[in-house]
Amino acid sequence: MNTSRQADYLRALYQDWSDRMAADPNLSIANLRSMFDEWGQAALEPEGVCYRSDHLGGIETIWALPVGADTSRVILYTHGGGFAVGSADSHRKLAGHLAKALGVTAAVLHYRRAPEHPFPAQIEDAVAAYKALLDKGFAAAKISTAGDSAGGNLAVAVVLKLRDLRLPLPGSVIAFSPWLDMALRGATLESNAATDALVSRGILEAMAGMFLGGRADARDPLANPLENDFKGFPPLYIAAGGAETLLSDSEALHARATAQGVRSVLSVVPGMQHVFTSLAGRAPEADDELRRIAAWYKNL
Amino acid sequence: MNTSRQADYLRALYQDWSDRMAADPNLSIANLRSMFDEWGQAALEPEGVCYRSDHLGGIETIWALPVGADTSRVILYTHGGGFAVGSADSHRKLAGHLAKALGVTAAVLHYRRAPEHPFPAQIEDAVAAYKALLDKGFAAAKISTAGDSAGGNLAVAVVLKLRDLRLPLPGSVIAFSPWLDMALRGATLESNAATDALVSRGILEAMAGMFLGGRADARDPLANPLENDFKGFPPLYIAAGGAETLLSDSEALHARATAQGVRSVLSVVPGMQHVFTSLAGRAPEADDELRRIAAWYKNL
Repeated sequence: MNTSRQADYLRALYQDWSDRMAADPNLSIANLRSMFDEWGQAALEPEGVCYRSDHLGGIETIWALPVGADTSRVILYTHGGGFAVGSADSHRKLAGHLAKALGVTAAVLHYRRAPEHPFPAQIEDAVAAYKALLDKGFAAAKISTAGDSAGGNLAVAVVLKLRDLRLPLPGSVIAFSPWLDMALRGATLESNAATDALVSRGILEAMAGMFLGGRADARDPLANPLENDFKGFPPLYIAAGGAETLLSDSEALHARATAQGVRSVLSVVPGMQHVFTSLAGRAPEADDELRRIAAWYKNL
Repeated sequence: MNTSRQADYLRALYQDWSDRMAADPNLSIANLRSMFDEWGQAALEPEGVCYRSDHLGGIETIWALPVGADTSRVILYTHGGGFAVGSADSHRKLAGHLAKALGVTAAVLHYRRAPEHPFPAQIEDAVAAYKALLDKGFAAAKISTAGDSAGGNLAVAVVLKLRDLRLPLPGSVIAFSPWLDMALRGATLESNAATDALVSRGILEAMAGMFLGGRADARDPLANPLENDFKGFPPLYIAAGGAETLLSDSEALHARATAQGVRSVLSVVPGMQHVFTSLAGRAPEADDELRRIAAWYKNL
Protein backbone atom coordinates (compact mmCIF):
# COMPACT_ATOMS: atom_id res chain seq x y z
CA MET A 1 0.00 0.00 0.00
CA ASN A 2 1.51 3.35 -0.99
CA THR A 3 1.37 5.43 2.15
CA SER A 4 3.78 8.27 2.83
CA ARG A 5 7.12 7.73 4.50
CA GLN A 6 5.97 10.03 7.32
CA ALA A 7 2.87 7.90 7.92
CA ASP A 8 5.13 5.07 8.99
CA TYR A 9 5.83 7.02 12.19
CA LEU A 10 2.44 5.96 13.58
CA ARG A 11 2.76 2.35 12.51
CA ALA A 12 6.19 2.19 14.17
CA LEU A 13 4.86 3.83 17.34
CA TYR A 14 2.00 1.31 17.53
CA GLN A 15 4.36 -1.59 16.83
CA ASP A 16 6.63 -0.36 19.64
CA TRP A 17 3.67 -0.32 22.06
CA SER A 18 2.62 -3.80 20.93
CA ASP A 19 6.17 -5.06 21.45
CA ARG A 20 6.39 -3.45 24.90
CA MET A 21 3.05 -4.95 25.97
CA ALA A 22 4.15 -8.36 24.69
CA ALA A 23 7.50 -8.07 26.50
CA ASP A 24 5.81 -7.12 29.77
CA PRO A 25 2.24 -8.47 29.87
CA ASN A 26 1.86 -7.25 33.44
CA LEU A 27 2.52 -3.56 32.81
CA SER A 28 0.50 -1.63 35.39
CA ILE A 29 -2.36 0.58 34.25
CA ALA A 30 -0.22 3.57 35.31
CA ASN A 31 2.58 2.43 33.02
CA LEU A 32 0.15 1.69 30.20
CA ARG A 33 -1.25 5.21 30.56
CA SER A 34 2.17 6.82 30.37
CA MET A 35 3.00 4.67 27.34
CA PHE A 36 -0.20 5.58 25.50
CA ASP A 37 0.42 9.25 26.23
CA GLU A 38 3.17 8.92 23.61
CA TRP A 39 0.27 9.13 21.13
CA GLY A 40 0.86 12.86 21.15
CA GLN A 41 4.31 12.38 19.65
CA ALA A 42 2.84 11.49 16.26
CA ALA A 43 1.52 14.98 15.55
CA LEU A 44 3.74 18.02 15.16
CA GLU A 45 2.85 21.16 17.08
CA PRO A 46 0.08 23.03 15.23
CA GLU A 47 1.46 26.53 14.68
CA GLY A 48 -0.54 29.50 15.88
CA VAL A 49 -2.49 27.56 18.49
CA CYS A 50 -2.40 28.52 22.16
CA TYR A 51 -3.78 26.48 25.07
CA ARG A 52 -5.51 27.04 28.37
CA SER A 53 -5.95 24.64 31.29
CA ASP A 54 -9.49 24.77 32.57
CA HIS A 55 -12.39 22.76 33.96
CA LEU A 56 -15.67 22.21 32.15
CA GLY A 57 -18.58 20.81 34.15
CA GLY A 58 -16.03 19.89 36.79
CA ILE A 59 -13.85 17.94 34.35
CA GLU A 60 -10.23 18.88 33.61
CA THR A 61 -10.05 20.35 30.12
CA ILE A 62 -7.41 21.77 27.81
CA TRP A 63 -8.65 24.48 25.48
CA ALA A 64 -6.98 24.66 22.08
CA LEU A 65 -7.29 28.24 20.88
CA PRO A 66 -6.11 28.86 17.32
CA VAL A 67 -5.18 32.48 16.75
CA GLY A 68 -8.06 34.10 14.85
CA ALA A 69 -10.52 31.25 15.49
CA ASP A 70 -14.27 31.86 15.64
CA THR A 71 -14.62 31.73 19.43
CA SER A 72 -18.39 31.25 19.18
CA ARG A 73 -17.71 27.77 17.78
CA VAL A 74 -16.24 24.86 19.70
CA ILE A 75 -15.30 21.21 19.28
CA LEU A 76 -15.93 19.09 22.38
CA TYR A 77 -13.11 16.58 21.92
CA THR A 78 -13.04 13.16 23.63
CA HIS A 79 -9.71 11.34 23.30
CA GLY A 80 -9.17 7.69 22.47
CA GLY A 81 -7.51 4.95 24.46
CA GLY A 82 -10.12 2.27 25.11
CA PHE A 83 -11.83 4.40 27.82
CA ALA A 84 -8.84 3.47 30.06
CA VAL A 85 -5.77 5.23 28.70
CA GLY A 86 -5.07 8.35 26.63
CA SER A 87 -5.62 11.84 27.98
CA ALA A 88 -6.28 15.44 27.13
CA ASP A 89 -2.49 15.84 26.98
CA SER A 90 -2.00 13.02 24.48
CA HIS A 91 -4.62 14.48 22.15
CA ARG A 92 -3.95 18.21 22.62
CA LYS A 93 -2.09 18.54 19.32
CA LEU A 94 -4.61 16.53 17.26
CA ALA A 95 -7.46 18.61 18.67
CA GLY A 96 -5.41 21.75 18.01
CA HIS A 97 -4.90 20.78 14.37
CA LEU A 98 -8.59 19.96 13.94
CA ALA A 99 -9.67 23.22 15.58
CA LYS A 100 -7.25 25.20 13.42
CA ALA A 101 -8.43 23.49 10.22
CA LEU A 102 -12.05 24.30 11.08
CA GLY A 103 -11.25 27.82 12.32
CA VAL A 104 -12.86 27.15 15.69
CA THR A 105 -11.85 26.42 19.30
CA ALA A 106 -11.62 23.00 20.93
CA ALA A 107 -12.12 21.79 24.49
CA VAL A 108 -10.23 18.52 25.08
CA LEU A 109 -11.80 16.59 27.96
CA HIS A 110 -9.78 14.62 30.49
CA TYR A 111 -12.79 12.44 31.34
CA ARG A 112 -12.73 9.76 34.05
CA ARG A 113 -11.19 6.51 32.86
CA ALA A 114 -11.86 2.81 33.36
CA PRO A 115 -11.31 0.58 35.21
CA GLU A 116 -11.54 2.94 38.22
CA HIS A 117 -14.54 4.58 36.57
CA PRO A 118 -16.48 2.20 34.33
CA PHE A 119 -19.34 3.00 31.94
CA PRO A 120 -21.24 5.32 31.98
CA ALA A 121 -18.82 7.69 33.82
CA GLN A 122 -17.26 8.77 30.51
CA ILE A 123 -20.61 9.69 28.96
CA GLU A 124 -21.69 11.46 32.13
CA ASP A 125 -18.53 13.57 31.96
CA ALA A 126 -19.09 14.40 28.30
CA VAL A 127 -22.71 15.40 29.02
CA ALA A 128 -21.58 17.56 31.95
CA ALA A 129 -19.02 19.30 29.75
CA TYR A 130 -21.58 19.80 26.97
CA LYS A 131 -24.03 21.35 29.41
CA ALA A 132 -21.24 23.60 30.69
CA LEU A 133 -20.66 24.80 27.13
CA LEU A 134 -24.36 25.60 26.78
CA ASP A 135 -24.22 27.42 30.13
CA LYS A 136 -21.26 29.46 28.85
CA GLY A 137 -23.50 30.64 26.01
CA PHE A 138 -22.38 28.42 23.14
CA ALA A 139 -25.28 27.74 20.76
CA ALA A 140 -25.80 24.00 20.40
CA ALA A 141 -25.61 24.30 16.62
CA LYS A 142 -22.12 25.78 16.97
CA ILE A 143 -20.86 22.86 19.06
CA SER A 144 -19.36 19.80 17.38
CA THR A 145 -18.58 16.64 19.26
CA ALA A 146 -15.46 14.88 18.04
CA GLY A 147 -13.21 12.08 19.15
CA ASP A 148 -11.12 9.12 18.12
CA SER A 149 -11.33 5.39 18.85
CA ALA A 150 -13.14 5.01 22.19
CA GLY A 151 -13.45 8.81 22.17
CA GLY A 152 -15.16 8.52 18.78
CA ASN A 153 -17.68 6.26 20.49
CA LEU A 154 -18.17 8.95 23.14
CA ALA A 155 -18.57 11.69 20.51
CA VAL A 156 -21.52 9.69 19.11
CA ALA A 157 -22.88 8.31 22.38
CA VAL A 158 -23.05 11.70 24.05
CA VAL A 159 -25.39 12.87 21.27
CA LEU A 160 -27.65 9.85 21.80
CA LYS A 161 -27.68 10.63 25.52
CA LEU A 162 -28.46 14.30 24.86
CA ARG A 163 -31.36 13.20 22.68
CA ASP A 164 -32.65 11.03 25.56
CA LEU A 165 -32.32 14.04 27.86
CA ARG A 166 -34.19 16.21 25.32
CA LEU A 167 -31.30 18.67 25.23
CA PRO A 168 -30.43 20.56 22.03
CA LEU A 169 -28.08 18.49 19.85
CA PRO A 170 -24.70 19.65 18.55
CA GLY A 171 -24.42 20.89 14.99
CA SER A 172 -22.11 18.11 13.81
CA VAL A 173 -20.19 15.03 14.90
CA ILE A 174 -16.68 13.96 13.83
CA ALA A 175 -15.36 10.47 14.55
CA PHE A 176 -11.82 9.26 13.81
CA SER A 177 -11.66 5.44 13.71
CA PRO A 178 -14.46 5.08 16.27
CA TRP A 179 -14.64 1.94 18.36
CA LEU A 180 -18.35 1.32 18.65
CA ASP A 181 -19.19 -2.36 18.89
CA MET A 182 -18.34 -3.62 22.37
CA ALA A 183 -19.51 -7.06 21.17
CA LEU A 184 -16.60 -7.11 18.65
CA ARG A 185 -18.54 -8.41 15.65
CA GLY A 186 -16.70 -6.48 12.91
CA ALA A 187 -15.32 -8.51 10.00
CA THR A 188 -12.13 -6.40 9.79
CA LEU A 189 -11.17 -7.55 13.30
CA GLU A 190 -10.02 -10.69 11.50
CA SER A 191 -9.43 -9.53 7.94
CA ASN A 192 -7.14 -6.63 8.98
CA ALA A 193 -5.49 -8.40 11.90
CA ALA A 194 -2.22 -8.70 9.99
CA THR A 195 -2.01 -5.02 9.00
CA ASP A 196 -3.15 -3.25 12.19
CA ALA A 197 -0.04 -2.64 14.32
CA LEU A 198 -1.93 -1.99 17.54
CA VAL A 199 -5.58 -2.96 17.83
CA SER A 200 -6.33 -6.66 18.24
CA ARG A 201 -9.32 -8.59 19.50
CA GLY A 202 -7.32 -9.32 22.67
CA ILE A 203 -6.68 -5.69 23.54
CA LEU A 204 -10.30 -4.76 22.73
CA GLU A 205 -11.64 -7.57 24.93
CA ALA A 206 -9.47 -6.34 27.82
CA MET A 207 -10.62 -2.75 27.35
CA ALA A 208 -14.30 -3.64 26.90
CA GLY A 209 -14.05 -5.61 30.12
CA MET A 210 -12.71 -2.62 32.04
CA PHE A 211 -15.25 -0.27 30.42
CA LEU A 212 -18.35 -2.41 30.96
CA GLY A 213 -17.08 -3.36 34.42
CA GLY A 214 -19.30 -6.41 34.61
CA ARG A 215 -22.26 -4.11 34.98
CA ALA A 216 -23.32 -3.26 31.45
CA ASP A 217 -24.02 -5.44 28.44
CA ALA A 218 -21.84 -5.24 25.33
CA ARG A 219 -25.02 -4.34 23.44
CA ASP A 220 -26.22 -1.67 25.83
CA PRO A 221 -27.27 1.06 23.38
CA LEU A 222 -25.30 3.74 25.22
CA ALA A 223 -22.10 1.66 25.43
CA ASN A 224 -22.57 0.39 21.87
CA PRO A 225 -23.84 3.19 19.62
CA LEU A 226 -24.44 0.74 16.77
CA GLU A 227 -27.42 -0.59 18.76
CA ASN A 228 -29.29 2.67 18.21
CA ASP A 229 -31.80 4.49 16.15
CA PHE A 230 -30.06 7.44 14.45
CA LYS A 231 -33.11 9.43 13.47
CA GLY A 232 -32.48 13.15 13.93
CA PHE A 233 -28.77 12.65 14.40
CA PRO A 234 -26.59 15.63 13.30
CA PRO A 235 -24.37 15.54 10.19
CA LEU A 236 -21.62 13.03 10.75
CA TYR A 237 -18.07 12.73 9.38
CA ILE A 238 -16.24 9.44 9.88
CA ALA A 239 -12.57 8.93 8.95
CA ALA A 240 -10.82 5.58 9.20
CA GLY A 241 -7.72 3.80 7.96
CA GLY A 242 -7.91 0.99 5.45
CA ALA A 243 -5.41 -1.12 7.42
CA GLU A 244 -7.22 -1.10 10.73
CA THR A 245 -9.13 -3.82 12.51
CA LEU A 246 -11.84 -1.37 13.58
CA LEU A 247 -12.69 -0.31 10.03
CA SER A 248 -15.93 -2.35 10.20
CA ASP A 249 -17.17 -0.14 13.03
CA SER A 250 -16.83 2.98 10.87
CA GLU A 251 -18.55 1.25 7.97
CA ALA A 252 -21.38 0.00 10.17
CA LEU A 253 -21.94 3.43 11.70
CA HIS A 254 -21.99 5.08 8.28
CA ALA A 255 -24.39 2.47 6.86
CA ARG A 256 -26.76 2.65 9.80
CA ALA A 257 -26.75 6.45 9.97
CA THR A 258 -27.21 6.85 6.21
CA ALA A 259 -30.06 4.32 6.17
CA GLN A 260 -31.82 6.42 8.77
CA GLY A 261 -31.44 9.66 6.87
CA VAL A 262 -28.39 11.13 8.57
CA ARG A 263 -26.04 13.16 6.36
CA SER A 264 -23.00 10.98 6.88
CA VAL A 265 -19.61 11.02 5.16
CA LEU A 266 -17.22 8.09 5.43
CA SER A 267 -13.60 8.62 4.36
CA VAL A 268 -11.41 5.53 4.33
CA VAL A 269 -7.75 6.12 3.47
CA PRO A 270 -6.09 2.97 2.10
CA GLY A 271 -3.20 1.53 4.05
CA MET A 272 -3.53 3.85 7.03
CA GLN A 273 -3.51 2.79 10.68
CA HIS A 274 -5.99 3.40 13.50
CA VAL A 275 -6.62 7.15 14.13
CA PHE A 276 -4.25 8.15 11.35
CA THR A 277 -5.16 11.81 11.87
CA SER A 278 -2.84 11.52 14.91
CA LEU A 279 -0.17 12.27 12.28
CA ALA A 280 -1.44 15.83 11.79
CA GLY A 281 1.35 18.17 10.76
CA ARG A 282 3.63 15.23 9.99
CA ALA A 283 1.99 13.10 7.29
CA PRO A 284 0.09 14.35 4.22
CA GLU A 285 -2.63 11.72 4.68
CA ALA A 286 -3.61 13.31 8.01
CA ASP A 287 -3.43 16.89 6.79
CA ASP A 288 -5.43 16.04 3.66
CA GLU A 289 -8.12 14.44 5.81
CA LEU A 290 -8.34 17.53 8.03
CA ARG A 291 -8.72 19.67 4.90
CA ARG A 292 -11.57 17.45 3.69
CA ILE A 293 -13.25 17.76 7.08
CA ALA A 294 -12.81 21.55 7.00
CA ALA A 295 -14.47 21.73 3.56
CA TRP A 296 -17.34 19.54 4.80
CA TYR A 297 -17.73 21.62 7.97
CA LYS A 298 -17.86 24.93 6.10
CA ASN A 299 -20.67 23.60 3.87
CA LEU A 300 -22.89 22.28 6.66
CA MET B 1 7.33 23.04 56.11
CA ASN B 2 4.52 25.32 54.94
CA THR B 3 4.30 24.76 51.23
CA SER B 4 1.14 25.35 49.24
CA ARG B 5 -1.48 22.66 48.79
CA GLN B 6 -0.88 22.86 45.04
CA ALA B 7 2.84 22.19 45.49
CA ASP B 8 1.98 18.76 46.80
CA TYR B 9 1.06 17.76 43.24
CA LEU B 10 4.76 17.45 42.38
CA ARG B 11 5.66 15.58 45.55
CA ALA B 12 2.83 13.12 44.86
CA LEU B 13 3.89 12.71 41.22
CA TYR B 14 7.48 11.95 42.28
CA GLN B 15 6.31 9.56 44.98
CA ASP B 16 4.18 7.75 42.42
CA TRP B 17 7.20 7.35 40.13
CA SER B 18 9.31 6.12 43.05
CA ASP B 19 6.60 3.61 43.96
CA ARG B 20 6.29 2.42 40.36
CA MET B 21 10.06 1.97 40.02
CA ALA B 22 10.15 0.07 43.32
CA ALA B 23 7.23 -2.13 42.24
CA ASP B 24 8.90 -2.94 38.93
CA PRO B 25 12.69 -2.59 39.20
CA ASN B 26 13.09 -3.89 35.66
CA LEU B 27 11.01 -1.25 33.89
CA SER B 28 12.52 -0.83 30.42
CA ILE B 29 14.14 2.46 29.46
CA ALA B 30 11.22 3.00 27.06
CA ASN B 31 8.74 2.63 29.92
CA LEU B 32 10.85 4.85 32.19
CA ARG B 33 10.86 7.51 29.47
CA SER B 34 7.12 7.44 29.07
CA MET B 35 6.73 7.60 32.86
CA PHE B 36 9.04 10.60 33.22
CA ASP B 37 7.21 12.36 30.42
CA GLU B 38 4.44 12.78 33.01
CA TRP B 39 6.66 15.58 34.34
CA GLY B 40 4.74 17.87 32.04
CA GLN B 41 1.53 17.18 33.97
CA ALA B 42 2.72 19.31 36.89
CA ALA B 43 2.51 22.61 35.01
CA LEU B 44 -0.72 24.07 33.69
CA GLU B 45 -0.79 25.30 30.11
CA PRO B 46 0.77 28.79 29.92
CA GLU B 47 -1.88 30.98 28.31
CA GLY B 48 -0.99 32.95 25.22
CA VAL B 49 1.90 30.72 24.21
CA CYS B 50 1.97 28.98 20.82
CA TYR B 51 4.43 26.27 19.72
CA ARG B 52 6.27 25.21 16.62
CA SER B 53 7.99 21.89 15.88
CA ASP B 54 11.38 22.51 14.31
CA HIS B 55 14.98 21.34 14.11
CA LEU B 56 17.94 23.36 15.38
CA GLY B 57 21.41 22.25 14.36
CA GLY B 58 19.81 18.98 13.31
CA ILE B 59 18.18 18.40 16.70
CA GLU B 60 14.41 18.16 17.18
CA THR B 61 13.20 21.29 18.91
CA ILE B 62 9.92 22.73 20.13
CA TRP B 63 9.69 26.50 20.00
CA ALA B 64 7.61 28.16 22.70
CA LEU B 65 6.37 31.45 21.29
CA PRO B 66 4.56 33.71 23.75
CA VAL B 67 2.25 36.17 22.02
CA GLY B 68 4.02 39.54 22.01
CA ALA B 69 7.43 38.14 22.99
CA ASP B 70 10.66 39.86 21.94
CA THR B 71 11.58 37.50 19.12
CA SER B 72 15.18 38.74 19.07
CA ARG B 73 15.65 37.03 22.45
CA VAL B 74 15.67 33.29 23.06
CA ILE B 75 16.11 30.74 25.82
CA LEU B 76 17.93 27.59 24.73
CA TYR B 77 16.22 25.12 27.08
CA THR B 78 17.69 21.71 27.98
CA HIS B 79 15.27 19.43 29.85
CA GLY B 80 16.03 17.32 32.89
CA GLY B 81 15.83 13.56 33.35
CA GLY B 82 19.32 12.34 34.20
CA PHE B 83 20.47 12.67 30.56
CA ALA B 84 18.42 9.50 29.87
CA VAL B 85 14.73 10.40 30.23
CA GLY B 86 12.63 13.56 29.91
CA SER B 87 12.01 15.26 26.58
CA ALA B 88 11.16 18.48 24.84
CA ASP B 89 7.52 17.42 25.24
CA SER B 90 7.77 16.91 29.00
CA HIS B 91 9.27 20.38 29.47
CA ARG B 92 7.34 22.33 26.84
CA LYS B 93 5.04 23.95 29.38
CA LEU B 94 7.81 24.86 31.87
CA ALA B 95 9.84 26.44 29.07
CA GLY B 96 6.70 28.20 27.85
CA HIS B 97 6.05 29.67 31.30
CA LEU B 98 9.68 30.78 31.63
CA ALA B 99 9.68 32.35 28.16
CA LYS B 100 6.41 34.14 28.87
CA ALA B 101 7.68 35.46 32.23
CA LEU B 102 10.81 36.84 30.54
CA GLY B 103 8.93 38.11 27.47
CA VAL B 104 11.14 36.11 25.11
CA THR B 105 10.99 32.95 22.99
CA ALA B 106 12.30 29.53 23.97
CA ALA B 107 13.73 26.62 21.98
CA VAL B 108 13.32 23.34 23.86
CA LEU B 109 15.88 20.80 22.68
CA HIS B 110 15.14 17.10 22.32
CA TYR B 111 18.84 16.22 22.62
CA ARG B 112 20.17 12.65 22.28
CA ARG B 113 19.82 10.66 25.47
CA ALA B 114 21.87 8.10 27.38
CA PRO B 115 22.49 5.21 27.47
CA GLU B 116 22.26 4.95 23.66
CA HIS B 117 24.15 8.25 23.42
CA PRO B 118 26.49 8.80 26.36
CA PHE B 119 28.46 11.92 27.26
CA PRO B 120 29.34 14.19 25.48
CA ALA B 121 26.50 13.71 22.91
CA GLN B 122 24.20 15.95 24.97
CA ILE B 123 26.69 18.81 25.08
CA GLU B 124 27.48 18.41 21.39
CA ASP B 125 23.76 18.74 20.63
CA ALA B 126 23.43 21.83 22.79
CA VAL B 127 26.47 23.42 21.11
CA ALA B 128 25.06 22.58 17.67
CA ALA B 129 21.75 24.19 18.60
CA TYR B 130 23.49 27.26 20.02
CA LYS B 131 25.52 27.68 16.83
CA ALA B 132 22.32 27.33 14.81
CA LEU B 133 20.80 30.18 16.84
CA LEU B 134 23.85 32.34 16.07
CA ASP B 135 23.52 31.38 12.39
CA LYS B 136 19.87 32.44 12.50
CA GLY B 137 21.06 35.87 13.57
CA PHE B 138 20.45 35.80 17.31
CA ALA B 139 23.03 37.94 19.12
CA ALA B 140 24.85 35.84 21.71
CA ALA B 141 24.02 38.39 24.42
CA LYS B 142 20.32 37.86 23.71
CA ILE B 143 20.56 34.08 24.15
CA SER B 144 20.10 32.53 27.60
CA THR B 145 20.84 28.90 28.29
CA ALA B 146 18.46 27.32 30.78
CA GLY B 147 17.62 23.89 32.05
CA ASP B 148 16.65 21.76 35.00
CA SER B 149 18.33 18.87 36.79
CA ALA B 150 20.63 17.16 34.25
CA GLY B 151 19.48 19.85 31.81
CA GLY B 152 20.68 22.46 34.32
CA ASN B 153 24.07 20.80 34.11
CA LEU B 154 23.88 21.11 30.30
CA ALA B 155 22.86 24.78 30.49
CA VAL B 156 26.09 25.43 32.41
CA ALA B 157 28.35 22.92 30.63
CA VAL B 158 27.45 24.23 27.19
CA VAL B 159 28.76 27.66 28.20
CA LEU B 160 32.05 26.13 29.41
CA LYS B 161 32.32 24.30 26.10
CA LEU B 162 31.55 27.48 24.13
CA ARG B 163 34.32 29.22 26.09
CA ASP B 164 36.73 26.42 25.09
CA LEU B 165 35.62 26.85 21.49
CA ARG B 166 36.15 30.65 21.76
CA LEU B 167 32.58 31.27 20.68
CA PRO B 168 30.61 34.25 22.03
CA LEU B 169 28.92 33.34 25.30
CA PRO B 170 25.20 33.68 26.05
CA GLY B 171 23.96 36.67 28.00
CA SER B 172 22.74 34.69 30.98
CA VAL B 173 22.26 31.21 32.39
CA ILE B 174 19.31 29.85 34.39
CA ALA B 175 19.51 26.54 36.24
CA PHE B 176 16.62 24.86 38.07
CA SER B 177 17.90 22.29 40.60
CA PRO B 178 20.96 21.49 38.50
CA TRP B 179 22.60 18.09 38.89
CA LEU B 180 26.29 18.88 38.54
CA ASP B 181 28.46 16.57 40.59
CA MET B 182 28.65 13.18 38.87
CA ALA B 183 30.86 12.09 41.82
CA LEU B 184 27.85 12.54 44.17
CA ARG B 185 29.66 14.31 46.99
CA GLY B 186 26.87 16.68 48.09
CA ALA B 187 25.94 16.63 51.77
CA THR B 188 22.21 16.98 51.05
CA LEU B 189 22.26 13.63 49.26
CA GLU B 190 22.11 12.22 52.77
CA SER B 191 20.63 15.05 54.82
CA ASN B 192 17.60 15.49 52.52
CA ALA B 193 17.18 11.82 51.67
CA ALA B 194 14.02 11.60 53.77
CA THR B 195 12.31 14.63 52.21
CA ASP B 196 13.14 14.22 48.50
CA ALA B 197 10.37 12.10 46.96
CA LEU B 198 12.32 11.20 43.81
CA VAL B 199 16.08 11.74 43.70
CA SER B 200 18.20 9.26 45.64
CA ARG B 201 21.85 8.26 45.50
CA GLY B 202 20.75 5.02 43.84
CA ILE B 203 18.92 6.68 40.96
CA LEU B 204 21.78 9.17 40.45
CA GLU B 205 24.38 6.38 40.38
CA ALA B 206 22.36 4.57 37.72
CA MET B 207 21.98 7.73 35.63
CA ALA B 208 25.62 8.79 36.03
CA GLY B 209 26.62 5.31 34.88
CA MET B 210 24.51 5.61 31.71
CA PHE B 211 25.73 9.16 31.07
CA LEU B 212 29.46 8.53 31.58
CA GLY B 213 29.13 5.22 29.76
CA GLY B 214 32.34 3.86 31.25
CA ARG B 215 34.24 6.29 29.05
CA ALA B 216 34.39 9.52 31.05
CA ASP B 217 35.44 10.24 34.63
CA ALA B 218 32.92 11.53 37.16
CA ARG B 219 35.21 14.54 37.58
CA ASP B 220 35.63 15.27 33.89
CA PRO B 221 35.23 19.06 33.85
CA LEU B 222 32.68 18.95 31.03
CA ALA B 223 30.57 16.22 32.66
CA ASN B 224 30.96 17.81 36.09
CA PRO B 225 30.75 21.60 35.83
CA LEU B 226 31.78 21.99 39.47
CA GLU B 227 35.30 20.95 38.40
CA ASN B 228 35.73 24.20 36.47
CA ASP B 229 37.05 27.69 36.52
CA PHE B 230 34.08 30.09 36.16
CA LYS B 231 36.01 33.22 35.21
CA GLY B 232 34.10 35.18 32.57
CA PHE B 233 30.94 33.13 33.06
CA PRO B 234 27.69 35.02 32.32
CA PRO B 235 25.25 36.12 35.02
CA LEU B 236 23.74 33.02 36.59
CA TYR B 237 20.41 32.36 38.33
CA ILE B 238 20.03 29.15 40.30
CA ALA B 239 16.73 28.03 41.86
CA ALA B 240 16.42 24.95 44.04
CA GLY B 241 14.08 23.38 46.56
CA GLY B 242 14.96 23.15 50.23
CA ALA B 243 13.74 19.55 50.44
CA GLU B 244 15.84 18.13 47.66
CA THR B 245 18.87 15.88 47.77
CA LEU B 246 20.60 17.86 45.01
CA LEU B 247 20.48 21.17 46.92
CA SER B 248 24.23 20.90 47.62
CA ASP B 249 24.94 21.05 43.89
CA SER B 250 23.15 24.39 43.59
CA GLU B 251 24.94 25.71 46.66
CA ALA B 252 28.35 24.54 45.39
CA LEU B 253 27.77 26.08 41.95
CA HIS B 254 26.72 29.39 43.49
CA ALA B 255 29.69 29.43 45.90
CA ARG B 256 32.21 28.58 43.21
CA ALA B 257 30.79 31.03 40.66
CA THR B 258 30.52 33.85 43.19
CA ALA B 259 34.08 33.27 44.43
CA GLN B 260 35.28 33.69 40.87
CA GLY B 261 33.45 36.94 40.30
CA VAL B 262 30.35 35.69 38.51
CA ARG B 263 27.11 37.59 39.22
CA SER B 264 25.23 34.63 40.64
CA VAL B 265 21.86 34.47 42.40
CA LEU B 266 20.81 31.43 44.40
CA SER B 267 17.14 31.11 45.37
CA VAL B 268 16.28 28.24 47.69
CA VAL B 269 12.59 27.81 48.48
CA PRO B 270 12.06 25.93 51.75
CA GLY B 271 10.23 22.64 51.61
CA MET B 272 10.10 22.42 47.84
CA GLN B 273 10.99 19.39 45.74
CA HIS B 274 13.43 18.93 42.87
CA VAL B 275 12.70 21.30 39.92
CA PHE B 276 9.75 22.85 41.73
CA THR B 277 9.29 25.31 38.86
CA SER B 278 7.71 22.32 37.09
CA LEU B 279 4.61 23.49 38.98
CA ALA B 280 4.37 26.67 36.90
CA GLY B 281 0.80 27.88 36.59
CA ARG B 282 -0.30 25.52 39.36
CA ALA B 283 1.60 26.43 42.55
CA PRO B 284 2.43 29.93 43.81
CA GLU B 285 5.99 28.91 44.73
CA ALA B 286 6.76 28.21 41.08
CA ASP B 287 5.07 31.34 39.75
CA ASP B 288 6.78 33.51 42.37
CA GLU B 289 10.14 32.07 41.37
CA LEU B 290 9.50 32.83 37.70
CA ARG B 291 8.59 36.40 38.65
CA ARG B 292 11.88 36.75 40.55
CA ILE B 293 13.79 35.43 37.56
CA ALA B 294 11.96 37.86 35.27
CA ALA B 295 12.92 40.79 37.52
CA TRP B 296 16.55 39.61 37.59
CA TYR B 297 16.57 39.15 33.80
CA LYS B 298 15.17 42.60 33.10
CA ASN B 299 17.93 44.18 35.23
CA LEU B 300 20.85 42.34 33.65
